[in-house]
Amino acid sequence: MSKGKVVLAYSGGLDTSVILKWLIEEGYDVVAFIADVGQDEDFEAAREKALKVGASKVYVEDLKEEFVTDFIFPAFKSQAIYEGRYMLGTSIARPVIAKKQIEIAIKENAQFVSHGATGKGNDQVRFELTYLALKPDIKILAPWKMESFLNRFRGRTDMLNYAAQYGIPVKATASKPYSEDDNLLHISHEAGILEDPNAPAAEDIYSRTTPLENTPDQPDIIALTFKDGLAVKVENLHDGHVETKPLPLFTYLNTLGTKHGIGRLDMVENRFVGIKSRGVYETPGGAILFVAHRDLEGLTMDREVMKLRDSLSSKVAELIYNGFWFSPEMEFLMSAMDKAQEMVDGTVQVKLFKGHAYPIARSSPVALYNPKQSSMDEAGGYDQRHAEGFIKINAIRLQAHTLVKKKARDQGKSGKKAA
Amino acid sequence: MSKGKVVLAYSGGLDTSVILKWLIEEGYDVVAFIADVGQDEDFEAAREKALKVGASKVYVEDLKEEFVTDFIFPAFKSQAIYEGRYMLGTSIARPVIAKKQIEIAIKENAQFVSHGATGKGNDQVRFELTYLALKPDIKILAPWKMESFLNRFRGRTDMLNYAAQYGIPVKATASKPYSEDDNLLHISHEAGILEDPNAPAAEDIYSRTTPLENTPDQPDIIALTFKDGLAVKVENLHDGHVETKPLPLFTYLNTLGTKHGIGRLDMVENRFVGIKSRGVYETPGGAILFVAHRDLEGLTMDREVMKLRDSLSSKVAELIYNGFWFSPEMEFLMSAMDKAQEMVDGTVQVKLFKGHAYPIARSSPVALYNPKQSSMDEAGGYDQRHAEGFIKINAIRLQAHTLVKKKARDQGKSGKKAA
Amino acid sequence: MSKGKVVLAYSGGLDTSVILKWLIEEGYDVVAFIADVGQDEDFEAAREKALKVGASKVYVEDLKEEFVTDFIFPAFKSQAIYEGRYMLGTSIARPVIAKKQIEIAIKENAQFVSHGATGKGNDQVRFELTYLALKPDIKILAPWKMESFLNRFRGRTDMLNYAAQYGIPVKATASKPYSEDDNLLHISHEAGILEDPNAPAAEDIYSRTTPLENTPDQPDIIALTFKDGLAVKVENLHDGHVETKPLPLFTYLNTLGTKHGIGRLDMVENRFVGIKSRGVYETPGGAILFVAHRDLEGLTMDREVMKLRDSLSSKVAELIYNGFWFSPEMEFLMSAMDKAQEMVDGTVQVKLFKGHAYPIARSSPVALYNPKQSSMDEAGGYDQRHAEGFIKINAIRLQAHTLVKKKARDQGKSGKKAA
Amino acid sequence: MSKGKVVLAYSGGLDTSVILKWLIEEGYDVVAFIADVGQDEDFEAAREKALKVGASKVYVEDLKEEFVTDFIFPAFKSQAIYEGRYMLGTSIARPVIAKKQIEIAIKENAQFVSHGATGKGNDQVRFELTYLALKPDIKILAPWKMESFLNRFRGRTDMLNYAAQYGIPVKATASKPYSEDDNLLHISHEAGILEDPNAPAAEDIYSRTTPLENTPDQPDIIALTFKDGLAVKVENLHDGHVETKPLPLFTYLNTLGTKHGIGRLDMVENRFVGIKSRGVYETPGGAILFVAHRDLEGLTMDREVMKLRDSLSSKVAELIYNGFWFSPEMEFLMSAMDKAQEMVDGTVQVKLFKGHAYPIARSSPVALYNPKQSSMDEAGGYDQRHAEGFIKINAIRLQAHTLVKKKARDQGKSGKKAA
Repeated sequence: MSKGKVVLAYSGGLDTSVILKWLIEEGYDVVAFIADVGQDEDFEAAREKALKVGASKVYVEDLKEEFVTDFIFPAFKSQAIYEGRYMLGTSIARPVIAKKQIEIAIKENAQFVSHGATGKGNDQVRFELTYLALKPDIKILAPWKMESFLNRFRGRTDMLNYAAQYGIPVKATASKPYSEDDNLLHISHEAGILEDPNAPAAEDIYSRTTPLENTPDQPDIIALTFKDGLAVKVENLHDGHVETKPLPLFTYLNTLGTKHGIGRLDMVENRFVGIKSRGVYETPGGAILFVAHRDLEGLTMDREVMKLRDSLSSKVAELIYNGFWFSPEMEFLMSAMDKAQEMVDGTVQVKLFKGHAYPIARSSPVALYNPKQSSMDEAGGYDQRHAEGFIKINAIRLQAHTLVKKKARDQGKSGKKAA
Repeated sequence: MSKGKVVLAYSGGLDTSVILKWLIEEGYDVVAFIADVGQDEDFEAAREKALKVGASKVYVEDLKEEFVTDFIFPAFKSQAIYEGRYMLGTSIARPVIAKKQIEIAIKENAQFVSHGATGKGNDQVRFELTYLALKPDIKILAPWKMESFLNRFRGRTDMLNYAAQYGIPVKATASKPYSEDDNLLHISHEAGILEDPNAPAAEDIYSRTTPLENTPDQPDIIALTFKDGLAVKVENLHDGHVETKPLPLFTYLNTLGTKHGIGRLDMVENRFVGIKSRGVYETPGGAILFVAHRDLEGLTMDREVMKLRDSLSSKVAELIYNGFWFSPEMEFLMSAMDKAQEMVDGTVQVKLFKGHAYPIARSSPVALYNPKQSSMDEAGGYDQRHAEGFIKINAIRLQAHTLVKKKARDQGKSGKKAA
Repeated sequence: MSKGKVVLAYSGGLDTSVILKWLIEEGYDVVAFIADVGQDEDFEAAREKALKVGASKVYVEDLKEEFVTDFIFPAFKSQAIYEGRYMLGTSIARPVIAKKQIEIAIKENAQFVSHGATGKGNDQVRFELTYLALKPDIKILAPWKMESFLNRFRGRTDMLNYAAQYGIPVKATASKPYSEDDNLLHISHEAGILEDPNAPAAEDIYSRTTPLENTPDQPDIIALTFKDGLAVKVENLHDGHVETKPLPLFTYLNTLGTKHGIGRLDMVENRFVGIKSRGVYETPGGAILFVAHRDLEGLTMDREVMKLRDSLSSKVAELIYNGFWFSPEMEFLMSAMDKAQEMVDGTVQVKLFKGHAYPIARSSPVALYNPKQSSMDEAGGYDQRHAEGFIKINAIRLQAHTLVKKKARDQGKSGKKAA
Repeated sequence: MSKGKVVLAYSGGLDTSVILKWLIEEGYDVVAFIADVGQDEDFEAAREKALKVGASKVYVEDLKEEFVTDFIFPAFKSQAIYEGRYMLGTSIARPVIAKKQIEIAIKENAQFVSHGATGKGNDQVRFELTYLALKPDIKILAPWKMESFLNRFRGRTDMLNYAAQYGIPVKATASKPYSEDDNLLHISHEAGILEDPNAPAAEDIYSRTTPLENTPDQPDIIALTFKDGLAVKVENLHDGHVETKPLPLFTYLNTLGTKHGIGRLDMVENRFVGIKSRGVYETPGGAILFVAHRDLEGLTMDREVMKLRDSLSSKVAELIYNGFWFSPEMEFLMSAMDKAQEMVDGTVQVKLFKGHAYPIARSSPVALYNPKQSSMDEAGGYDQRHAEGFIKINAIRLQAHTLVKKKARDQGKSGKKAA
């Protein structure tokens, strides 16, 4: 008798194929779910493979539109960047996949969901927190954290033997000596030969950005238009190419970013589970979007709103990285981010050249800076003499502090206080 | 009878020469102070000019060493960056100049200090807050905020006429259609033709960074070594060039940054006086230092310390930008920054190429990440099964939130709550 | 010929009466505006006085309802409290007054507004920032910062003589040796004999809270009900008294707070102009509202949302204190506060006794805590064994830190690192 | 053969006695460790009991001095308060206990430590994180999270039977229908009948604070003196009683706080494991210390330092609450807290009466406020006219924002932007 139905996030690779078979062997009815978030994959081949291995049903879901619109764009609107550098390419993709997986579980009336992420990484957390947030009573089968699975498969050899035993096809191509994650937003490279943070990554590891040696000697200049902080139009000022829908717009940014070698990163980061990890990332379109958006904010966002927003952006990044996309605190922050973006309308010209996305010009119908017909002039202008009082009042605290330190010194206070 | 002695921050240019003369005319005894913070200037010519215009005494002070050691390095140790982008090249230079000016005022027993910064900008604030913080009873003559000066000089023509009248030499070279500030850390370009944020800056405006078109086709790779977050050694891995003292080390980074076109920025920023302003900046050595330092932190700094530190870095940047280098809050923050850097020891390899300072490798004797002989292994390693409990406990709040939202919806609460 | 029309915030006291007369003398047409924000005042007498002194028109505006609904309640919903203690009784009242004053200026087509706040305090900032925020081209006459006024009135004697000269009635009662500000939310006492922070305030200085020696020996227990973080009902559980409208509800809280001696504060605070100041405050109803609201949040607000909200509450308080009620950053924060309060529905029982407002019980239809039919149980409950993994994963960073410190020590690093 | 030596945190109660016996039964050599942190306990009786049950050795350690000096005072210096209200009485006691337990484990060459905290609470986390932080390779036996123990003891009855079987004495007194934790800093009451947050706690639950009905009708007024933010002297101004050493000083504050009914709290809080929990707390001496310290800061701490410090205090509280006393981030924060307290020297008079600790006067040799010989006067005083420029410059952003909103409205933007 079946132990129940499980929806498995299936990639078509060795690991999830073995898991699929093992779950069936363990007595589960397995529905395979293949998410298309823009990775380089033959989805029909994967579907066939899942069925061949024994899936009772296979869902192949194109999530690219939803991924861009509901996940990538809101994250970039928030200027979310992890530990000052990482654009969260893997992190943002996990909740869109897990959300669809739960929708399928509900539709299929499955009590279980399963995934192939390991127990040392961030992805397991992102998947499982999303599962539990969206369906609190869902049951999770995470083989890499299950005694029985770990006892059965002690290494890659066990998995290859198991695959051979059950006729699970294994790609003939030699696997890379490191692992990759690939979606519309980025490709990551980590583990294996990249585990030594002091070993430079070879050029051939990078696969989504042209090496700077080979990028064109002519820049592209694009005009990227935002409304409420969201990209609504890109125009290539050289050839007139225009995109206005989220997915083709973002895809076009990727094309240009790839061409000009934009968006590489090699860093040591901190995983949610407390381990440091080295990753190499390529985020071509995202890097362009990020700098263009911030540049427009410079023109349109109030200084103090920007300070408050910036103080929250790193929290948004942390939540996304740690798997809390669906959480009360993320709802709170996203509401704040929407508010902060109300006035972020306008167009930024960005020069794409030799790995750089470099903003060179920006305009806005609601600019707080208007050099010609300045708002300040309309309001009566700026009187330089006001600056005297402004400075004198700001100095009062500083003067008092200096005088008290002198007093402490004169009273023979410790060197610490008098320093 | 003299109204008293004033120490004037003198640049040798038209404005401060006119101010020098005008102050004398107003009855002050003027001591000229020329600060060498690494700008491109003929200091002896400036000294001669000051004397010729009528200064009773001239100080030319080489502040470069102090500038690097006590100002640039501490700021970069703090990862201070204004509004996400600006490396504070002008801001950091102001307090070192004003500090020396106050020292001279004390030595000269002068009651007054003066400067030529305008009333709309940040520099006036940085100068004057430093003056008042360091010597609370100092009196400030800021001509651009003084009724009598403003009435006398209503524009550039008045100043040129005044210069002609008093035989003040004016440089024959056509002045640039924008203004610049130049020191060891950066050169800025702003105002004039740059005031339109939608007008791209012409390539010839950039003067300290090679255009990408002309940068070498061979990278330099340097090994930059830090101790307690401070750069203590740079080695060019291609030619073996080594520097270990702060000033030559930083100068060498500038040389390399200039060569490879590193450190450009074009942005609209928010001045302390509440006006938005467009600036074009070149910070070649600083840009290298900044990324190398952050990269090493990735390897050596605890995750939670980094979060706290990052939340304070933007405050440090704001204080530097706004002129509060000498303030109780800056003392507080710098103490915290010192603590956070205790473990930031190690070496980062940075590839300098086509405008990029790209970290490719990093090592540390106190790395929190050690792939070979991992600290985690010594402590008993990582048990993947622990991740289950970690995730389940983290999910509790999310589950409760979802169930309460459902409950609110079922109770017929507003769409807002049930959303 | 008239210099123009000015709307003067008029209190009926000596200062604004002198200012009224002086403005007329200076050639202005003065419209007096008397704001009723709940202070203890004979408004009709004030109206008569203004007309007698020479106002061309007098507005007496009852702002109490607006004050409670649009200012007090939103501020308390935000848990805004300045420097950990001050409930902002004066600060919150200023923008409602200045807002109405600008409305009158627009209606009266007046180019000027004026107020009697001094140049050393916070109120001038609060009034004037509100004026300029709401009507950027308004002109402000602030006599206490005007050369001509300061030369004319060098002290209280000059003002009394002026009043006598022009037949301005001066209250016969001896004025208190300190100053007060009085409205629906609080009364403040400061300056004069209170300027010595080491001199205890005499009991008779307190006027809105019964001395603890005289408060009733029987508590009142009230049930205070909130919806979206706003108080919507108060019920006295002893006598059944109920209020549901904002103004009578808040007035009733004041009555109870006064009766039981609740809401006193004696503190040294930091003014926006950089001066420290000692204030004695009584905020009877506000103190009750504040603790009840926070108590309900304990039951209904997610932990992480609370952390984020708390980090913003102090900023809201700072903005209110400094006069930035109408500002882009306040709009941003208030939007966030609204979001955070979506689930703050429920009822808190508060015991009012001997100066304490002490929450003793709380319930909510959307409680995240439900002891009987716990949400956690519905979701499958809590497995104590999960805590092991939770703790072990959280410990990883701490273990690594300890091992690295030991390593640093063993390598003979400085005591600092090895500490 | 023994499975090894374990140091058990032993309280003398039923639970840890059963655990002691069970560990022996499981094959461990058990060293009992009884920590005296000021709780109401017969330590010699507990020692006897441990030996009787089978401990191979018993340590009774008086940690009160260390608890006050190294834990309570630093926490209160940081103004650490959890979720705006809780003074962390239990949380602060855990690391001092666990630290000594690890010291004993090292001395005894024990591989294991054990405790009796349950798997749903915070204490297990605080104990275990401290164990692992201080000795990364320590092994933990936490029976309430162990399969074998949970199977053996399914409820209180099993434990009572087990005690009877092994002759473990059980206190004859009826146990309270809720649980308590008791130390020098506070007593907490929770669980059992207190689990319903809407059920008021009966008066007889409170045991360390006199009911307000019975507190004296005469206040005590104390003068509490701080140096570097630490209490160094208390003097009762009524009877001249003086204490200057940390432990007797704090104990005396407890005595006074108990007498006057100070420091009660009834709240719903958020546990680290994500569950909401209701607690009733009494912290008599701590409550006095907390308000006195903050009051002195008002007089001596710079405004901007206070803002930064306040933003970190809640993080300190969170870390203490969650068990991260020994962590890199706590080291970082405590260093910052030390710096912030350098100038917190002086004396506060606090009136203790009817449950209130009410500061009435404060003085300091390094006050930033000095009413008589004000620092501001020495520095040349305050010119009211400077306030005009200060306000005008601060208004520039607000004016620009208003004008842009108007422009957006005029351009037919959405109501959202024009709001």
